[in-house]
Amino acid sequence: MQSKTATIEDVARLAGVSIATVSRALHHPAKVAEATRKKVLAAIDSTGFTANAMAQSLRLKSTRMILAIVPDIGNTFFASILRGLEAVAQRRGYGLLIGNSENDPALEETYVSYLRSGKVDGLVLLSGRLPWPAGSIPANPPPMISVCEEIEMPGLPFIGIDNMAAARLAVEHLISAGHRRIAYVAGPERNILTRQREEGYAVALAAAGIPLDPTLLLPGDFSIESGIRAAASMDGMKDPPTAFFCISDEMAIGVIMELTRRGLKVPEDVAVMGFDDIQFSSCTNPPLTTVRQPRREIGEEAMGVLLDLIETGTPPSLRRVLPVEIVVRGSTGMPAKAR
Amino acid sequence: MQSKTATIEDVARLAGVSIATVSRALHHPAKVAEATRKKVLAAIDSTGFTANAMAQSLRLKSTRMILAIVPDIGNTFFASILRGLEAVAQRRGYGLLIGNSENDPALEETYVSYLRSGKVDGLVLLSGRLPWPAGSIPANPPPMISVCEEIEMPGLPFIGIDNMAAARLAVEHLISAGHRRIAYVAGPERNILTRQREEGYAVALAAAGIPLDPTLLLPGDFSIESGIRAAASMDGMKDPPTAFFCISDEMAIGVIMELTRRGLKVPEDVAVMGFDDIQFSSCTNPPLTTVRQPRREIGEEAMGVLLDLIETGTPPSLRRVLPVEIVVRGSTGMPAKAR
Repeated sequence: MQSKTATIEDVARLAGVSIATVSRALHHPAKVAEATRKKVLAAIDSTGFTANAMAQSLRLKSTRMILAIVPDIGNTFFASILRGLEAVAQRRGYGLLIGNSENDPALEETYVSYLRSGKVDGLVLLSGRLPWPAGSIPANPPPMISVCEEIEMPGLPFIGIDNMAAARLAVEHLISAGHRRIAYVAGPERNILTRQREEGYAVALAAAGIPLDPTLLLPGDFSIESGIRAAASMDGMKDPPTAFFCISDEMAIGVIMELTRRGLKVPEDVAVMGFDDIQFSSCTNPPLTTVRQPRREIGEEAMGVLLDLIETGTPPSLRRVLPVEIVVRGSTGMPAKAR
Repeated sequence: MQSKTATIEDVARLAGVSIATVSRALHHPAKVAEATRKKVLAAIDSTGFTANAMAQSLRLKSTRMILAIVPDIGNTFFASILRGLEAVAQRRGYGLLIGNSENDPALEETYVSYLRSGKVDGLVLLSGRLPWPAGSIPANPPPMISVCEEIEMPGLPFIGIDNMAAARLAVEHLISAGHRRIAYVAGPERNILTRQREEGYAVALAAAGIPLDPTLLLPGDFSIESGIRAAASMDGMKDPPTAFFCISDEMAIGVIMELTRRGLKVPEDVAVMGFDDIQFSSCTNPPLTTVRQPRREIGEEAMGVLLDLIETGTPPSLRRVLPVEIVVRGSTGMPAKAR
């Protein structure tokens, strides 16, 4: 049924367009009328031209596939972002592949070699760093965009939130409820989100005239387990916190679990606040007060900018920051001393 | 630093091996000593030969990339399986790409065209169906394996659990705690897991001499929201269930939330049991009794079988079923009437 030797000429003839139009439909679809693109794609399908898509990619340097690198596929935070990325990719005729990096250079390397060989058209970086070893960034990297965890590189577009301002808002919410002993549960040490959100925490305290107590800066790694450890570290404290601000909902869930296990009541004894508004944060007991990031919109916006960059050579904007929202649920309230 | 015109001859010369050995190292790595493979890979890296990996793939028909198609990237159930797949892929020198199908034929189609063009070496199907439209399965599909949701196709290897037996075990746990009015909260209608687990539910009831009451078969779709709806459907019942057996933990979490909202106590008033043992199932209040699937092992096993199939042409086994475990936590207990 399908000829294995179908050429771009066959496709053009069948679609009733020029070879240049076929090439444009594949390479710069935004510059071709939707009806023409559909005619070309139909011709490609019926000639079996896509059976030669790899040779075609060599000629056209286009695969219509985008690779998103995420640092941890198990973190539900990324699900809505990936869905947003995918929705826009699909609408514009691209596919989305996901690579899980686990922040492991060996894993990142497999994606790099895949990239180097031109098997994807563009790259969405959710992992906060470039997938190349230090010093070996190629002269002509593929079109790419940094999402959520900002990568500091001139000319690299970024879509996400203002993490400093968002953390400041969260801590101000706790301060306005009367808390002055607020623990900060951090993410991984060198993670940019950890630094930006800690800055927001410090700024909020300073603005309220509350001195920053370094013993309230608790380590974490975004996981439930690290939240459990953070809550358990109250043991040694002379003047324990009345509230925990955790920079991921998973850690806040761990804190609630451990406080509950110790017979403490949330929020009556200790308030707990998270960050992200993942799906499960409304299912905890009590439900979690948190910072909602517009994750699906972040994904949609990011894919739109990347595809514009691929198709036109210039991104429509270099930096876009979307608004966050404090979602107040049951896990925060006034400290016992203030009541 | 890197020559753009590096050829397989350059690689062979630098590695001190024959051209055939370079080809074999890339195409049938299992047939090449690990030290030789490493030498070849080092030579490839330093000559920049991988810059021509696409042309190379045309020659060698190997990309060393595996594509896993998951039905819902937001479902945390898949995270450990993907980690298991990845661990073995990496150990054996392959990369893993993830495609999210959302059970959407349009999305699946993008992966199919990618496959057709030889951009991946093999396919892991977690979505319970082949990614080709009915009737258009290619004569020579790429090596593939079906995982968790079994696809009925002769010769297609499968790794997962015995869903009928696992559901039977779960219901027997509830029966042994004294329950006789046990609701079954289903997954999507045509999903094979729904059918297999409902069979296990029916078999367990029959073995205990409990008649199956069709009004206790409640619809669901694996989501938290569908669990909430299932619990809310108690409203119209003359003789409501004393226990809910939900075939996903997400649905069980929804059931606990809705029962709690209605002032019912879990497990004192109503027992709740889930399926899968996702990360959050130990964080609910009370923690969830569930069926643990060895998800990481399933992923590791599946990748091992697939890579053997790719490298040798025959799978080491066609069907492997791994054992499950009932994890008893706080959400199940004796029915009030029996106490």
